[in-house]
Amino acid sequence: MSIRAVLFDVFGTLLDVQSVWARADQLFPGNGAQLARLWREKQLEYTRLRTISGRYVSFTRVTEDALQFACDALALPLDAAARGMLMHEYTQLDPYPDAIPSLKKLEQAGVTIGVLSNGDPGLLDDVLHGAGLADYFDIVLSADQVHAFKTAPAVYELGPLTLKHPASEIVLVSSNAWDAIGAKWYGYVSFWVNRAGGPLDRLGERPDAIGKSLDDAAGFVLQSVKKQEK
Amino acid sequence: MSIRAVLFDVFGTLLDVQSVWARADQLFPGNGAQLARLWREKQLEYTRLRTISGRYVSFTRVTEDALQFACDALALPLDAAARGMLMHEYTQLDPYPDAIPSLKKLEQAGVTIGVLSNGDPGLLDDVLHGAGLADYFDIVLSADQVHAFKTAPAVYELGPLTLKHPASEIVLVSSNAWDAIGAKWYGYVSFWVNRAGGPLDRLGERPDAIGKSLDDAAGFVLQSVKKQEK
Repeated sequence: MSIRAVLFDVFGTLLDVQSVWARADQLFPGNGAQLARLWREKQLEYTRLRTISGRYVSFTRVTEDALQFACDALALPLDAAARGMLMHEYTQLDPYPDAIPSLKKLEQAGVTIGVLSNGDPGLLDDVLHGAGLADYFDIVLSADQVHAFKTAPAVYELGPLTLKHPASEIVLVSSNAWDAIGAKWYGYVSFWVNRAGGPLDRLGERPDAIGKSLDDAAGFVLQSVKKQEK
Repeated sequence: MSIRAVLFDVFGTLLDVQSVWARADQLFPGNGAQLARLWREKQLEYTRLRTISGRYVSFTRVTEDALQFACDALALPLDAAARGMLMHEYTQLDPYPDAIPSLKKLEQAGVTIGVLSNGDPGLLDDVLHGAGLADYFDIVLSADQVHAFKTAPAVYELGPLTLKHPASEIVLVSSNAWDAIGAKWYGYVSFWVNRAGGPLDRLGERPDAIGKSLDDAAGFVLQSVKKQEK
């Protein structure tokens, strides 16, 4: 295994989306958790249906549609102000506490670092700058470039195409098991950040490594890089 | 609109999956509803991820994988006997009370009737015979024929290819809004059986008609057929 670069997923992996759920509970007291769950579920569902059917719209649009559906389903009144507040929260996410230390370690080791996200370029630019992470990345790859969402092969293909290394020499780090498995299916070395310690999805494939934190992920990448230097 | 045929979705549309949920609650008292919800959610998720990534396995296999994950996630002990019982329940579903009366009406009007389902042919054969519906169908179309699941265009294409009519002359009836929308995206006339009266998914498209029952769906088809005879 000869590792040349690492690509991170963004939402939920580098950036903590908890603040969105907290805002949801502020706006709809007692309903925040249920709204957040349904919103997230529908957001993913819509990315997949649109990808399968070739009906791409931006991640921001999908996120807003999913929010509207979730509020419809839970009979929560979503006015323009509430919608604006929740969508804005999405552009203002905090990094996980171990994000910057992990990126620093990788940078110091000379590893090429990037992100590969479903988010559209405008949203990615906003959130990565807002979280103080932008300077760590050599490349920012967005599903929008190919008008499909993960786990479409066309999305994962952006890594090898842009980095000019085969996927087997790139580690993809994601907190979504399905993303880590999708990347592995494509040919990446993949790392699942399993913060909650949940069971692995049963898709007939396993990530190459599993840990509990971004620090674990950075450790895995550095170890893989060192091995090849020996 | 010149309607030549109608295709029904099967699981949840013609056949009631409640008995599976009831069995789940019998096996895991108090956890049936939560297990059923997660099982169904993962079943759909796995069909979509495998379709996007070109990693098809049969619907029966996906259903069993999803059941295992759901039990893992809820820390419910799924032994071989429980797994067998729940999976067997899936082959023994009852039709909705208005299924046979609706199919009879359509048959008497001389409409070509078929099913278009994610289910694999063996499972479809079992459930449609078990429910006493098999004799009403001129054709049984399975996603397995193209090794992809709904809403893949290749699956919807089976209708026009087999019936030798354009999709715009075929009504697709489904209790899943995403299926009715997927069919509409493909070019079908689509009918959503919205039994629970829930909100429509926000995917930028609407089914051609929405009703509360299979009887409503049959009425819509017969009305469309009559119009063209005038």
